[in-house]
Amino acid sequence: MKQIEGGVCAAKGFYANGVHCGIRRGREKRDLALIYSEYPASAAAVYTKNLVKGAPLAVTKANIADGSARAVICNSGNANTCNSNGIEIAEQTCALLAEKLGIEPSDVIVASTGVIGQPLDIAPIAAGIPPLCEGLVPDGSGLAAEAIMTTDTKIKSAAFAFDIGGTECRIGGIAKGSGMIHPNMATMLVFVTADCAITPQMLQKALSEDVKDSFNMISVDGDTSTNDMVSVMANGAAGNPVIDAEGADFDAFCEALAAVTKTLCKAIAADGEGATKLLECTVTGASDADSARAVAKSVVCSSLLKAAMFGADANWGRVLCAVGYSGVETDVTKIGVSFASAAGGIEVCRNGAGVDFSEEKAKEILSQGEIKINVSLGDGDASATAWGCDLTYDYVKINGDYRT
Amino acid sequence: MKQIEGGVCAAKGFYANGVHCGIRRGREKRDLALIYSEYPASAAAVYTKNLVKGAPLAVTKANIADGSARAVICNSGNANTCNSNGIEIAEQTCALLAEKLGIEPSDVIVASTGVIGQPLDIAPIAAGIPPLCEGLVPDGSGLAAEAIMTTDTKIKSAAFAFDIGGTECRIGGIAKGSGMIHPNMATMLVFVTADCAITPQMLQKALSEDVKDSFNMISVDGDTSTNDMVSVMANGAAGNPVIDAEGADFDAFCEALAAVTKTLCKAIAADGEGATKLLECTVTGASDADSARAVAKSVVCSSLLKAAMFGADANWGRVLCAVGYSGVETDVTKIGVSFASAAGGIEVCRNGAGVDFSEEKAKEILSQGEIKINVSLGDGDASATAWGCDLTYDYVKINGDYRT
Repeated sequence: MKQIEGGVCAAKGFYANGVHCGIRRGREKRDLALIYSEYPASAAAVYTKNLVKGAPLAVTKANIADGSARAVICNSGNANTCNSNGIEIAEQTCALLAEKLGIEPSDVIVASTGVIGQPLDIAPIAAGIPPLCEGLVPDGSGLAAEAIMTTDTKIKSAAFAFDIGGTECRIGGIAKGSGMIHPNMATMLVFVTADCAITPQMLQKALSEDVKDSFNMISVDGDTSTNDMVSVMANGAAGNPVIDAEGADFDAFCEALAAVTKTLCKAIAADGEGATKLLECTVTGASDADSARAVAKSVVCSSLLKAAMFGADANWGRVLCAVGYSGVETDVTKIGVSFASAAGGIEVCRNGAGVDFSEEKAKEILSQGEIKINVSLGDGDASATAWGCDLTYDYVKINGDYRT
Repeated sequence: MKQIEGGVCAAKGFYANGVHCGIRRGREKRDLALIYSEYPASAAAVYTKNLVKGAPLAVTKANIADGSARAVICNSGNANTCNSNGIEIAEQTCALLAEKLGIEPSDVIVASTGVIGQPLDIAPIAAGIPPLCEGLVPDGSGLAAEAIMTTDTKIKSAAFAFDIGGTECRIGGIAKGSGMIHPNMATMLVFVTADCAITPQMLQKALSEDVKDSFNMISVDGDTSTNDMVSVMANGAAGNPVIDAEGADFDAFCEALAAVTKTLCKAIAADGEGATKLLECTVTGASDADSARAVAKSVVCSSLLKAAMFGADANWGRVLCAVGYSGVETDVTKIGVSFASAAGGIEVCRNGAGVDFSEEKAKEILSQGEIKINVSLGDGDASATAWGCDLTYDYVKINGDYRT
């Protein structure tokens, strides 16, 4: 498997585009994205567990109930959530796009991200769809990735080439992250495309398993969004024998999917609202995988630890505090903690108590852009990794006045 | 019932003091507090549910297992948590105090607050105990309240006079809050004193019920501390018939206890680290009390909403988002949201969708120091209130470099 360029257009038969249609007045950025497969594709998705769900999620869920899709359309600037006519607007969007592309409305995955509770006008979307479709290009992934950004500061994209039974396949994805990032069974918007042949059932199985260790393990601010969604389309253009059961081919696909999703996870966490640092907490020695995940996520979610990391302060007591309230039964006297980065590593806690360490060295390690927080529990063999970011002045600034 | 002055010294027979003994080098603030009852007192306490617990909690639990206590000693500047000799230091503290006061070590409630994981030296405490005891005064509540502060900016104190079966009784408390405030069955340090006669069993029952609607309903940053503790001592000096069962007298005591604890709750939330505003979320129309509590707490815990409140931005979609991930089953299309403060009230969401409102008026309302967020669910008759604060630049600043 090797990392390649191309994002959602890396896989054969996929085209993309992104245009400015004017969802939010006064902003000139691209705000309408399209991903299109020239072949019918198996489709799968996972959605937010927030009970308050964006209207597009319900429409997408109905549209891909048959396991197939041809296109993804996504606007930024308005979440189309908590609006009385939200479903209607999402359905109109699908219908207008399908008509222009000559496909069925039920083959459209529709998504929205932005402010909650403001009516979404169909007019700019209707006006944007023709140029959006006419401008579809085989190297348009960057345009689409830009169009789904809100407070994101960087495009998030990943793609890999890999082998299934001797056939070269490709898989790639784009993501929008930033704030309101604390996914539960899904995440902020992520669109993945692949050119493998795989049944919708096996595609859904692969995705549902994957998110447990990818998107469900990141947090920017503990707020689970109303519009989280990860979708995958696989169009079979690579020519591999259809994957319709578990086995070596399915494992190869899952491995490639995980390579894409984990790359996007790290990109989302590193570009969390206001973030200056990526935090990666790896828990080892847990009694089982769920315990390891719970502890790792508890650590990267701690506001106090996040602020300490911003200040490059090796306040490991906050790590132990977060382990303690994670809900996992553990023996405090066996816990070990170390910090590491490009500047080296340092042990700060052993058997639940502090060890002497150089504050100067710790400060140097924690001043890097990627910080690893390693927690060993001494309870078993399970491990897990979670990603987050530091809590900064800019997070407060960005969210103190988000709507204007 | 009427609010009075005096804090933990309002009740008859209680004395207090606070001195500087030098727990943290270079800081001149008072850091050692003492509360003393001249009569034996019934004692009860609740403790953090964090699995990582401060050593003083274990010692206190053992000491008041017999339901009685005479004194509270508390240091700030060091949490005495995750230290290999923590229990020993806490026991030495009790022994030194008991010797000086001529009481039993097992009649001492001991507590610590401050940095986790740094060894606590007994020397400054041993040196501080004599002046601490010699300076006990019947109006020393403010000195003790000051000595338990860490990043708190204000003394937190409350007291009420009330009537039990014709006898005037008094109850009062002091608290230390600020950061790492997200109590689970207890809270940061709170010490309550009362001069009623009440059995330890009934005192514990009153306290355990009370915290569900008081300290367990506040959050500053979602981090449940390792050292949370609320203790109550009731010494019977008022002369009321002993409360040894449920009934009118017990209810009168519970009402007075709630008056003290809720006053302290609001003071803790309003003085959360970096806070500029007190947030009070009241949920009505819930199907049961637990659901109402869960929704109210979810709202005041949302980092996004907290930052919006800092910016006086009426971003009510974040309220609905927090309701949605609270874990409570609810019908989104029945949710209503309004904001209120000293500047008036404004409805922003009805039946799960936005209503037209004046942004100018909303800004004025949200620019006040106390903001009420009212959420109606339309599911039943239960209600609950939670308290929190806004998320500000100063929270990040305070926690970016807490240890130095």
